[in-house]
Amino acid sequence: MNYFSSDFKLGILGGGQLGKMLLAETRKFDIQTFALDPSKDAPCQFGTHYFEVGNLLDFYTVYQFGKKVDVLTIEIENVNLEALDQLEAEGKKVFPSPKTLRNIQSKITQKKIYLENHIPTANALLFESKGDLEAQKEKLTFPCVWKQDRFGYDGYGVKILKSEKDLTDLPETPCLIEEMIPFKNELAVIVVRSVSGEVKTYPVVEMEFHPEANQVEYVICPARIDEKVAIKAQEIALKVSEVFNHVGLLAVEMFQTIDDEILVNEVAPRPHNSGHYSIEASYTSQFENHLRAILDLPLGNTASKVAGIMVNLVGEEGFSGPVVYQNIEKIMAIDGVTPHIYGKRETRPFRKMGHVTIVNEDMTEARKVAEEVKNSIRVVSRS
Amino acid sequence: MNYFSSDFKLGILGGGQLGKMLLAETRKFDIQTFALDPSKDAPCQFGTHYFEVGNLLDFYTVYQFGKKVDVLTIEIENVNLEALDQLEAEGKKVFPSPKTLRNIQSKITQKKIYLENHIPTANALLFESKGDLEAQKEKLTFPCVWKQDRFGYDGYGVKILKSEKDLTDLPETPCLIEEMIPFKNELAVIVVRSVSGEVKTYPVVEMEFHPEANQVEYVICPARIDEKVAIKAQEIALKVSEVFNHVGLLAVEMFQTIDDEILVNEVAPRPHNSGHYSIEASYTSQFENHLRAILDLPLGNTASKVAGIMVNLVGEEGFSGPVVYQNIEKIMAIDGVTPHIYGKRETRPFRKMGHVTIVNEDMTEARKVAEEVKNSIRVVSRS
Repeated sequence: MNYFSSDFKLGILGGGQLGKMLLAETRKFDIQTFALDPSKDAPCQFGTHYFEVGNLLDFYTVYQFGKKVDVLTIEIENVNLEALDQLEAEGKKVFPSPKTLRNIQSKITQKKIYLENHIPTANALLFESKGDLEAQKEKLTFPCVWKQDRFGYDGYGVKILKSEKDLTDLPETPCLIEEMIPFKNELAVIVVRSVSGEVKTYPVVEMEFHPEANQVEYVICPARIDEKVAIKAQEIALKVSEVFNHVGLLAVEMFQTIDDEILVNEVAPRPHNSGHYSIEASYTSQFENHLRAILDLPLGNTASKVAGIMVNLVGEEGFSGPVVYQNIEKIMAIDGVTPHIYGKRETRPFRKMGHVTIVNEDMTEARKVAEEVKNSIRVVSRS
Repeated sequence: MNYFSSDFKLGILGGGQLGKMLLAETRKFDIQTFALDPSKDAPCQFGTHYFEVGNLLDFYTVYQFGKKVDVLTIEIENVNLEALDQLEAEGKKVFPSPKTLRNIQSKITQKKIYLENHIPTANALLFESKGDLEAQKEKLTFPCVWKQDRFGYDGYGVKILKSEKDLTDLPETPCLIEEMIPFKNELAVIVVRSVSGEVKTYPVVEMEFHPEANQVEYVICPARIDEKVAIKAQEIALKVSEVFNHVGLLAVEMFQTIDDEILVNEVAPRPHNSGHYSIEASYTSQFENHLRAILDLPLGNTASKVAGIMVNLVGEEGFSGPVVYQNIEKIMAIDGVTPHIYGKRETRPFRKMGHVTIVNEDMTEARKVAEEVKNSIRVVSRS
């Protein structure tokens, strides 16, 4: 199929910021796009050829949408998989496949796959319900980590349990309980795999946490870790990628333990927050490579031109309403600083409203600038 | 004005590829855009919030369009200036200003400005009409260069006159005749100037010509010239920028003579073909800096991360109709190669259909890849 000069149509399930950044690449290649999102105000309402409002979890909505396009992809995992099964059965190209998505949507299934395939991961107990968990509570060692099976995102659906009494507040849902891993670093590797099976990995990135708040402050590429650890992380990410047999991107989140072991935490089969730095820092951004992969084009170079650091712009606590980006002009005056504004009109505490990329030839300088950016910009609401 | 969180509206006169690439930046900053173009199939039909079909040279169309927005810019010089005068008189922000555009639209006025301001340029004779030229033909020395006063683009409106008999075919129009300059290199420098007067220059780029066909094959950044010549070119470009007192980008095209003199050829007050490499190679692309300049935001870093070379994708001779990009997958398999497809459905001989950027840490390698790209890709029509 000639994507560049035909009536080819690409469908995207989800119209959030990941879709919006993917659209920058579809526009560059002049690829016709259709997007589906539950909100009429979604960031992807502009830049597509056709934007539809609808429920991503509704069979009929997703099925009918998928019928309109030649290749269907996602920018969010939580979509109706039966519709994707049906579309695939009818010969439609769906990347990632419903099978890959099914294996990833459920954290219990993900964990089973890691264990079956000897992929290093934190030990875990799996529970079919809250009742099941309570019945076996004597098996738990506190503190431990509770994760709900499905529909978790951005820290929602994950809790640290300090003692037995924290069990009472948990919702009624299948879940897993993981041992608490004391780790040095939280790392991520993005793997891209094309329809034909060409595979490339991005460099290892590192999440730097706020020393007190235990919140990711910076995503740093390349990770400031030992070369051997980086190689191990990439090898494990490649193995995970093989197991899921995805087409498109797979972001593999990992822990580097105190003993320099690498343990896989979880994966996302789509463009990922940990790869946003790639727009400015890499030869080929994660979004362009996702597109190349699902269209079965040759993959682009995943190496970096320069060091990159990403700072999320999240809504400040205590502010809700029409968003204002305070001091954005101040940070734009610094060399190598690029804000990305997602186009959500209303801010809410911790809502992802945008991100800022800092690039520099020198990592130490980039890190210094990142801190200046972090300390300057504020996402608040109009008073 | 807070561009990032308000109902701010940016208007763009022209909806071609330059507008399309500018829209990538307005989307990144989530800025609301309106575009006006005579063709409903213009590349900017997607990615704007409001796209209008209309004549850019019609007073009323441009005036009414301008009334709808807060800041008005252009991506093509040939627009109705009286409408812009009127909008400016009513307090609308127009960048570049109609005054700057008026000085540049006419090549005769441009030339007068260079001469008055002691900006080095090829000597020229100015003629009010073809009759005027014919009456004074004894003043000409052949070969020489004929340029029509207005509406020239992409080589159209420029002719080399070898002898007196070439005069007969010229159209009825004011014109200038320039002495023929034997030059070593054709160079360009893009200057960006913000509303507040912050000014930055991009590195000097070099146009490499096909040894036989006398056609630009590659735009190369940085130019492979002596450092002293590069500094001189940038100084002259800055002086030209001051004289035109533009807001936004100004692309200054120049000749490097056999004696390493720099002579200004002509300018364009907008994003320019010679700056396309900046999307992949520069810290801040020309398009982002144009936007920063006209919105009076701090300007971004104009330095390069890596060497960049741009190859235009123009329609091959002998082909007209629905476009096909032959071997595009082949060139995408090479590291550091990014095609940009403008979204014009029909190819015609020499029509600009897209461009390809080649970036590499090493210029020699980039140049080698550029040649491979140039020799591989073909813009033809569906058979």
